[in-house]
Amino acid sequence: MSQPQNAISPRRDEDFPEWYQQVVKAADLAENSDVRGCMVIKPWGYGIWEAMQRGLDGLFKATGHKNAYFPLFIPLSYMAKEAEHVEGFAKECAVVTHHRLKSDGKGGLMPDPESQLTEPLIVRPTSETIIGATYAKWVQSYRDLPILINQWANVVRWEMRPRVFLRTAEFLWQEGHTAHETSAEAIGETEQMLGVYEKFAREWLALPVFTGEKSAGERFPGAVNTLCIEAMVQDRKAIQAGTSHFLGQNFAKASGIQFVSRENKQEHAWTTSWGVSTRLIGTVIMAHGDDDGVILPPRVAPSQIVIVPVAPKPDTRDAVFAACEALAEKLRAQSYGGEAIRVELDKRDLGGGQKSWEWIKRGVPVRVEIGPRDLEKGTLAVARRDRGHKEKSFPTSEEFIAGIAATLQEIHDALLARATALRDAHTVKLETKEDFIAFFTPKNKDKAEIHGGFALAHWDESAETETEIKEALKVTIRCIPFDSQVEDGQCVWSGRPSRRRVLFAKSY
Amino acid sequence: MSQPQNAISPRRDEDFPEWYQQVVKAADLAENSDVRGCMVIKPWGYGIWEAMQRGLDGLFKATGHKNAYFPLFIPLSYMAKEAEHVEGFAKECAVVTHHRLKSDGKGGLMPDPESQLTEPLIVRPTSETIIGATYAKWVQSYRDLPILINQWANVVRWEMRPRVFLRTAEFLWQEGHTAHETSAEAIGETEQMLGVYEKFAREWLALPVFTGEKSAGERFPGAVNTLCIEAMVQDRKAIQAGTSHFLGQNFAKASGIQFVSRENKQEHAWTTSWGVSTRLIGTVIMAHGDDDGVILPPRVAPSQIVIVPVAPKPDTRDAVFAACEALAEKLRAQSYGGEAIRVELDKRDLGGGQKSWEWIKRGVPVRVEIGPRDLEKGTLAVARRDRGHKEKSFPTSEEFIAGIAATLQEIHDALLARATALRDAHTVKLETKEDFIAFFTPKNKDKAEIHGGFALAHWDESAETETEIKEALKVTIRCIPFDSQVEDGQCVWSGRPSRRRVLFAKSY
Repeated sequence: MSQPQNAISPRRDEDFPEWYQQVVKAADLAENSDVRGCMVIKPWGYGIWEAMQRGLDGLFKATGHKNAYFPLFIPLSYMAKEAEHVEGFAKECAVVTHHRLKSDGKGGLMPDPESQLTEPLIVRPTSETIIGATYAKWVQSYRDLPILINQWANVVRWEMRPRVFLRTAEFLWQEGHTAHETSAEAIGETEQMLGVYEKFAREWLALPVFTGEKSAGERFPGAVNTLCIEAMVQDRKAIQAGTSHFLGQNFAKASGIQFVSRENKQEHAWTTSWGVSTRLIGTVIMAHGDDDGVILPPRVAPSQIVIVPVAPKPDTRDAVFAACEALAEKLRAQSYGGEAIRVELDKRDLGGGQKSWEWIKRGVPVRVEIGPRDLEKGTLAVARRDRGHKEKSFPTSEEFIAGIAATLQEIHDALLARATALRDAHTVKLETKEDFIAFFTPKNKDKAEIHGGFALAHWDESAETETEIKEALKVTIRCIPFDSQVEDGQCVWSGRPSRRRVLFAKSY
Repeated sequence: MSQPQNAISPRRDEDFPEWYQQVVKAADLAENSDVRGCMVIKPWGYGIWEAMQRGLDGLFKATGHKNAYFPLFIPLSYMAKEAEHVEGFAKECAVVTHHRLKSDGKGGLMPDPESQLTEPLIVRPTSETIIGATYAKWVQSYRDLPILINQWANVVRWEMRPRVFLRTAEFLWQEGHTAHETSAEAIGETEQMLGVYEKFAREWLALPVFTGEKSAGERFPGAVNTLCIEAMVQDRKAIQAGTSHFLGQNFAKASGIQFVSRENKQEHAWTTSWGVSTRLIGTVIMAHGDDDGVILPPRVAPSQIVIVPVAPKPDTRDAVFAACEALAEKLRAQSYGGEAIRVELDKRDLGGGQKSWEWIKRGVPVRVEIGPRDLEKGTLAVARRDRGHKEKSFPTSEEFIAGIAATLQEIHDALLARATALRDAHTVKLETKEDFIAFFTPKNKDKAEIHGGFALAHWDESAETETEIKEALKVTIRCIPFDSQVEDGQCVWSGRPSRRRVLFAKSY
């Protein structure tokens, strides 16, 4: 049987990385800028980010956090304060060395040598050091704790091989930074925020995720412990979709965050940090998209419903447009997930087919077409993006409006079920090195063949084994899952004794 | 009669600039960071910005704009494309020259010489050039126009004399950038967005503003015309609170934004840009604050109501707290200005007086105190921040809840009326140079005496006169007001003929 034609070429099974690039382009989400590694997030892509921000911000505030804003620049000397941190972040970052330009005498500009900074500034790759220096001023007594603050910001990490949303030199994110009186409280915060991320992934992004802690080798530089959520996307690779770090007293010591305790002793605070970024947009695309483009979970869709008037003839156009406007109004008065439903009415002077395909590629959850014959029959033509694009239902306007919140929830549930089925189908327990190697090796090495998945296997807890596996197969320990039971076993690689399974995968 | 004691020292009439610094500190809004010129916006200050963002964002979207995001960095060569623009913005900006650090061999870090960029990057001081380069790729035909996009972002302009919120090296803002088919449409957009700013100032910030256009000397570098809103604050100086620029085809030509017109000709687009920044927070403080601290217009107050339980004795504490919780719940179910009312319940273990004073200094519009005796009487003690702090009313809980939206609107209206009265009292028509000089000269030169105001006076439209006035008195033309009538007159400075009055003031 011949494959039906799809909007995106190549298909996922032909070349997944190229499919991703084409989907980003076809859905008008983002593009590379002339500035190496920096992306332009276009309105449709930014609309997804805005919806994610609203959702996350609500969850942060519900758990007692407030937003604030800290400087973009970090003095060079701050980066050197925490030994592991500097190793991890000082390597590739944007360095500001001058504060003025002058004419170069050839019609161009050059940094004015006289404006050279005494101390260069780093464009923040993450803000532990600059925020730590600030908290050190704010905290004197245990009464000043906890500090529960989040920041929405841009950060820069120079990237040699950028890929839109997944790995870019500049990206947008949120970074929570908290300081606590006790270790237990800080650990509790770290776990709570990972729980927030897990909930957000499931309830907003329709993504099932593994939760767990990172191996020492994969920890945030300077952290005592890094917790993470790991999602599987359709090429069966893992994406680290969010992290929550327990920083112990490492950064408090480096920055001097000290307080007089209840026992009247001088102590260092216990801090955490946690973040998710615009990488989540790439995750959603790769987790849910199909060969026709993006499929957006309703809660993060900039428009949840698009209404396309199909009125080629002038004599019926006004009536069709009026019906569309009326429907849009009524839909906007409905709510889903605690927000008014977002409806787009596409009145552009283009063919109905062209318009519908644009919205399919962009991933709008529900499309409604209204033409003169629909008006006569008193029905609508409704298509759900999670189903085949030829599959339509024809409810009356009243039926459609009454059921819209339920329909959006059904779409969400269907996406979550599909993503869960994919993940479960490709999460396996492996016992032998042979099976492990076979699992992570494409059968046909010439093709960008989708293979592997998540392997739950025993590990001897040595950095040596971890490195060997990474070098041999590009497979890393994604996390030590919270629900991993203690059981006797043998390391899948070294054969040495192991007490529990960890999650291995190739990853973005 | 002795002055009653106030929370802020010095008072406004003693030393306005110092009063401002003390209010910012007392209200816990922001502070200077260790990075020269960069501020830390603390949660209370950032909460004001969040409320401003929500208000503005709604107005932008209601006028057809969408948000997007463009790179933080601008290649050096882009800045040089528009001749006037480079003069205005290339002078003081952060220049990125390296992309990696290395050990300096002395335990510190240094920029790695091998990572020097071929072309330095500028941290955006404003984004016309980078966005123009992007639009040039997006626009081919008149069908691709208009582009109506806004960006929420941080920008950097190196400042030698920073002052929190008013003038900082890094600040937060929004910048709208639009491209149009015709000059008329772009001018219409420029005017529309100034109207949005005027509405926002009046309806959210309770600020009356003068609207008008800038003189050539005060225009945005590269603009054909700059429109602005100018507010008066309590030392009678002007603050440029928002600008909207008609850029003509200047930036389209510099960036190559070209399209095939309806007449099938290749033409350059007409562009606009418009922005407001965290400077608005400083404006609100200086316009409405009193000698007890900030007074926030309700729509931009992070919390509109604070409930302070006054329960020093353990035996009544539970009942008081329960009553406070119940009241908070009911108030949150009310709405004002289209949003759920924001209520803070201050359960901290501090004295009621200390807590109330904190909220006074922070400018919360309405304070409610509840103690055991209030429970007995069935009433609340309610204070409005726009009135004296000893003035209280004692409604029942039901009366208070039923009237809360009206109360918040009354507070807004009172602030607007007060600011309007101040502005009107100090906006004068001046005819002679003598009067003009006297108006802008403090009587007692030793003191930071509040003097002057807005002077509507004739100007001969020469740059020479404008410069002379600026140098002699530090007075500038704030705008040529839209409502300035054409009338014959003589320039207040040169005596030469003039056709209309312009608005002169000292300014921030």
